[in-house]
Amino acid sequence: MTHHPYSFDRAELHGSLADPAMESMNFLNQIAEQYPTALSLAAGRPTEAVFDLADLPRHLETFCRYLREEKNATESDVRRTVFQYGRTKGIIHELIAANLRVDEGIDVDPEAVVVTVGCQEAMFLALRALRRDERDVLLAVSPSYVGIAGAARLVDMKLLPVREGADGVLLDDLAAQVRAARAAGLRPRALYLIPDFANPSGLTMPLNARHSLLAAARELGLLLLEDNPYGLFRADGGERLPTLKSLDTTSQVVYLGSLAKTAFPGARVGYAVADQTVRSPGTDRSLLADEMAKIKSMLTVNTSPMAQALVGGKLLESDCSLVKANADTIAGYSRNLERLLTGLQDRFGHQPGISWSRPIGGFFVVVTVPFQADNATLEYSAGKHRLLWTPMSHFYQGEGGERQLRLSVSSVVPEQIDLGLDRLRSLVDDLTANHRL
Amino acid sequence: MTHHPYSFDRAELHGSLADPAMESMNFLNQIAEQYPTALSLAAGRPTEAVFDLADLPRHLETFCRYLREEKNATESDVRRTVFQYGRTKGIIHELIAANLRVDEGIDVDPEAVVVTVGCQEAMFLALRALRRDERDVLLAVSPSYVGIAGAARLVDMKLLPVREGADGVLLDDLAAQVRAARAAGLRPRALYLIPDFANPSGLTMPLNARHSLLAAARELGLLLLEDNPYGLFRADGGERLPTLKSLDTTSQVVYLGSLAKTAFPGARVGYAVADQTVRSPGTDRSLLADEMAKIKSMLTVNTSPMAQALVGGKLLESDCSLVKANADTIAGYSRNLERLLTGLQDRFGHQPGISWSRPIGGFFVVVTVPFQADNATLEYSAGKHRLLWTPMSHFYQGEGGERQLRLSVSSVVPEQIDLGLDRLRSLVDDLTANHRL
Repeated sequence: MTHHPYSFDRAELHGSLADPAMESMNFLNQIAEQYPTALSLAAGRPTEAVFDLADLPRHLETFCRYLREEKNATESDVRRTVFQYGRTKGIIHELIAANLRVDEGIDVDPEAVVVTVGCQEAMFLALRALRRDERDVLLAVSPSYVGIAGAARLVDMKLLPVREGADGVLLDDLAAQVRAARAAGLRPRALYLIPDFANPSGLTMPLNARHSLLAAARELGLLLLEDNPYGLFRADGGERLPTLKSLDTTSQVVYLGSLAKTAFPGARVGYAVADQTVRSPGTDRSLLADEMAKIKSMLTVNTSPMAQALVGGKLLESDCSLVKANADTIAGYSRNLERLLTGLQDRFGHQPGISWSRPIGGFFVVVTVPFQADNATLEYSAGKHRLLWTPMSHFYQGEGGERQLRLSVSSVVPEQIDLGLDRLRSLVDDLTANHRL
Repeated sequence: MTHHPYSFDRAELHGSLADPAMESMNFLNQIAEQYPTALSLAAGRPTEAVFDLADLPRHLETFCRYLREEKNATESDVRRTVFQYGRTKGIIHELIAANLRVDEGIDVDPEAVVVTVGCQEAMFLALRALRRDERDVLLAVSPSYVGIAGAARLVDMKLLPVREGADGVLLDDLAAQVRAARAAGLRPRALYLIPDFANPSGLTMPLNARHSLLAAARELGLLLLEDNPYGLFRADGGERLPTLKSLDTTSQVVYLGSLAKTAFPGARVGYAVADQTVRSPGTDRSLLADEMAKIKSMLTVNTSPMAQALVGGKLLESDCSLVKANADTIAGYSRNLERLLTGLQDRFGHQPGISWSRPIGGFFVVVTVPFQADNATLEYSAGKHRLLWTPMSHFYQGEGGERQLRLSVSSVVPEQIDLGLDRLRSLVDDLTANHRL
C-alpha cells in the first residue's frame, strides 16, 4: 500500500487564507523581491541610517543597570528577568508609561500597559477580546492600514468601513454606520483609526475634530482604537496635536503603541494601553489590559524579555523621551516629506488629472493619477520604469483608491526621492501617451 | 452631563476569557506570587544555572559573522537583517533545519520552517489555519499541556480529549473519538501530543507505538501535531527515540519546536515544521508553512530578528547541535529526576495510597495521593507547608487528575528536591492525619 503525502485544498483551511487583505502584503513583498533593482517609494519601513550594531550591547547593559539600581535587582534577578519567561504584561511597562507621560502627556497606570509583539499583536489582542460572536463588528476608517483588516479576519470579525473627510473620520457616516449595524442586529464595538499622519491617507485630525470624535464615541458607546505609529513625525514645524488618549477622560480609547519607527522594528516590541474596567461576577474587577494579557498568555506567552531589554535600554538612554531620541530622524523625515511635496509640484504642478495630498507629517503622500493604479500597473512600473509604489486599492475593503497610489518617504534619501519622481514622471507620460487610461 | 468611564462585563468579551484553561496559568502564577518563600516544585521553567549575560553580545556577534561569512552579507545587509522588519518565516530557518538534521535526524526543507514567537505561537498558527468553521475539532491526548487548550479556545476550536495508556495515546480510543466526531458531523483535523517525556504525564511512547500511531493517523486522515520541548532530556542513559517527524514519510506530522528549554525562554523563539502541500486553484502550490506565515503576518508580523539572532548565535556556537550545547543541562536534569524518584521511594515507598510515575526523562513526575489535590489544597500546601506543586486537574478538560499532583525538577537544585519532598511528606501526613481525604 502506498501512502500519499498529506495535502490540503486551501478551501479546507481558515477563510482568512483566501482573503485579499491577507494576500496584499504577500503580493507587495513578491513584487519587491522580483524587481530588486527597482527604486522603492512603497516601503513604510523606517530609515536605516540610525541603526548601529554597537548600540545593542549598550542598550542591554543600560537596562540591566536600571534593574540593579532602580529596581534593587540582584545579579540573579537580572539574569532571570532577561533570560527566563516573564510577566505576561511585560517588563518595560513602567518605562513605556514614563515615555507616554514625557512625550504625549498621557498619564496612565503602568498596570494598564500590555507590552506586545509589535503593535500588530496589540490589535489582535484587542479584537480577540472584543469579538464575542458573529454579531460583534469593528468599524475602521477607510482607507485603513492593512494590518487591522488582517487582524479582524483572524478572529472572523466583520469590518465596516467609515468614510474619511479632510478632518479625518466623518462623524455623520460613523453614526449612520453604527445605527445601520445595530438595526441589522450587529454590535459595533470599536472604531479603529490613526489620528496623526495616517497610513495610508496621511491625514491628521484637527484638535476640534478629536474632541468631537471623543464625544461621538461616548454618545455611541463605542471604543476608539487609536493607533499612533507616526505621531512623532510632524514635518511642518508646527506643534504636535494631543493624542485622543491624552484627551480621554472616560477610558473611551484603547491606545495602540508601536516602537518600530521610534526605536527599531527588529525588536518587535509594541504595546496597548487598555485602562477600561472589566467586571466579572465573583471576582475582582480587572482592567481590559489584564484580559488582553490572558489572551496573550495563550498566544505568545510573553514578549521577548531580551527584545524588551534592548528597547528599554534605548528608552532609558534618552530619559524615556523618544522625541529626544529621534531628533535627527524626525528632521530627516521632515526634509524628505518636503522634498517629495516640492518635487511633485515641480513635475506635476501644471498637469491636469494629477493631484496629491499635502500631509503635515508622517511617511505617506497619496497621488491621484489619470489611470488605474492597480497591481498590474505596479508590476509594469517596476519592470519598465524601475519604480515601486503601493496601489491605494489595497487599503480599501471593496471599492476605492483605484486611481491612487501611495508614496512613502521613510526609507529613502533625498536623491532617491528625486530619482523616484523622475521615474514617476516617465510612468505617467508612458501611460497617458499609450492611452492606458 | 457626567460621563462614566467605559467598562465591560466580562460576559461581553470573548468566551475564552471565562474559560478554566485560560484562568489556570493565572491562578498558578498568583499562588506563586502570594507565597514567594514557598519552595516550588511546580515551575516547568528551565534551570537558570547556565544563564550568563556576557553570552548575549557574543551570540549576536557570532550570528552577524555568519551573515557576513556564510551569507555574503554586507555591513548594511547585516544591520538591516537585525534591526528591520524581516522575512515572515524567519531568519534562522536554515540553522533550525541544520539543528533538526544534526540532533533529530529530521531532514526538512528550510522553507517548511516557520520561526515563531515561542512554540505557543506555532500552536496558534496551526490551529488557526486548520479551524475553518465550528465543525473543525482538535483531538488532544489527555492530560495535556494547558497551552494547547488555550490556543484552541482562542480560535473557538472544540478540543476532544483522547485517553492515554502506559505507551501514550490509546489508538482504540483515538479511532473511537474520530468515528464519533464524524458521526456527529464534526471534522477531526489533528491530534496534539508530546511523544517524549510528556507534560504533564512524563510518558514516553515506545518506538513501535510511534509507528502504530503514524499508521493510524494515515488511516484516519488526521494530522499529528508533535510538540517536543523536552526530547533532549532523556535521563536514564538510554538512547533517545526517533521523533514522529523523523519517521514521517507522508507529511502526516506538523512538528512544533521550542527553543525555550534548550536555548533560553527570554528569546521567545520557537518554530513549526509544516511541509504539507496546500493546493489552491489558479495559484502555485504552497506549503502549510506558507499559509501559517500568512496568518503570522497579521498576528506578530515576524519573530524579533534580534531575538532570532541571539538564538542563531547560540546554535552556531555549538555547530547547530543543541545536544552538544546542553550537555551539562541534560546531565543536571537527569540527576534531578533520579533524585526525585529516589526521594519519593525513600519517603513513600511503603505508604499505601501513594504512587508515582517513573519517567525516563524530562521534567515531570505525577504523584497520586489519597486526598483531593485541588487548588484549595495547593493553597494550603503553599501557606502551611511552603511547598508549591501543580494540581493535575488543570491538565484535564473536564474530569480527571483530582487526586494527582505534578512535581517538576527543572528549576531546582538537588537540595531543594530533598527539602521539597520533606515538605510533601509533612503535607501528606497533615492531610491524612486530619482526615481531609
